[in-house]
Amino acid sequence: MSFQPHPSWARLTEDKQQPWQTLSSQELAGPPRRVLQDRVQVRPGVETDYQYRPRGHQAVFVLPVTEAGEAVLIRQYRYPLRATITEIVAGGVERGEAPLDAAARELKEEVGGEAAEWVALPGFYTQPSISGVVFLPLLALGVRLGDTAHEATETIERFTVPLAEAYARLARGEIQDGSSCLVLWQARAELERRGLL
Amino acid sequence: MSFQPHPSWARLTEDKQQPWQTLSSQELAGPPRRVLQDRVQVRPGVETDYQYRPRGHQAVFVLPVTEAGEAVLIRQYRYPLRATITEIVAGGVERGEAPLDAAARELKEEVGGEAAEWVALPGFYTQPSISGVVFLPLLALGVRLGDTAHEATETIERFTVPLAEAYARLARGEIQDGSSCLVLWQARAELERRGLL
Repeated sequence: MSFQPHPSWARLTEDKQQPWQTLSSQELAGPPRRVLQDRVQVRPGVETDYQYRPRGHQAVFVLPVTEAGEAVLIRQYRYPLRATITEIVAGGVERGEAPLDAAARELKEEVGGEAAEWVALPGFYTQPSISGVVFLPLLALGVRLGDTAHEATETIERFTVPLAEAYARLARGEIQDGSSCLVLWQARAELERRGLL
Repeated sequence: MSFQPHPSWARLTEDKQQPWQTLSSQELAGPPRRVLQDRVQVRPGVETDYQYRPRGHQAVFVLPVTEAGEAVLIRQYRYPLRATITEIVAGGVERGEAPLDAAARELKEEVGGEAAEWVALPGFYTQPSISGVVFLPLLALGVRLGDTAHEATETIERFTVPLAEAYARLARGEIQDGSSCLVLWQARAELERRGLL
């Protein structure tokens, strides 16, 4: 299967020029969810302490669309919210794993899907003030659905809706996960171009 | 000035029904960036530890559009990324502050702007797996620009571009903050309806 990463993905990197200087760094929590606290010089005479999740971790978002032109969405219970919200497929890229392989794995695990074709969408950061995690979104096309394989600590329910209905819910603010909303918006032109929406 | 919160904002709440049960809770970090670690029962026989930022905090995102129909964007250095990225105005809602007042304050502080009219857009969560923070986006219209008042620990540069150019950059993946991208997408129909785009 031919697959091209989105050109933006290669640009989600550190700048050559750094206006702030790291004076010292301390690890508050180790892998897999590393948290650092650095002493930083913002400019001469201005220092601050900065807690953050450093770069080094990637996550994928996958919008699966079936051969029949339906969006595959999930309802997932999110403990920090004490609420079940509508999302698209997502998960972390494991060490040594290619983003496309992580996307295919999460598609299989979370909704039991296999895609005939993949389209990369623009990458982004979700919380640049506190996290260096890079998010890589993909549109999965021609998806066939089979059995799911949820982790024991996930509470996920799969459902499909016609694409037009998914976009109507998006416009009404009924999809409450920001990254899922963004990926739906990003995918819209491609879905229209293919006559799927 | 008449202002209506978006209907979705009132729905960014806890569910009545909770599939997971909290067995115990421990505060790892206090205000203003509270972090809890809870022992949780996912289902009978399955327990897990969950670290997260609890509900109670709101943030606003503001897309300012000038009277001349230009988007006001910022270039902000984000230390966790070691990179300067393009974003819209954003900031936390302070205790006792109304979201609209927080939006007006951040608009003034970050880009020196004052808006003639505000339009509320659909609310969202940015990191529902680890954070209960609620994000409330607003479109600020008829914005006049004056002096900025950045915090000492912010490295922010303001710039304006024609709206069409802002949306071209969005489509190319050149705006790397996910929430800023989402708010641009959300605002698009309203800007088109007003003949600004």
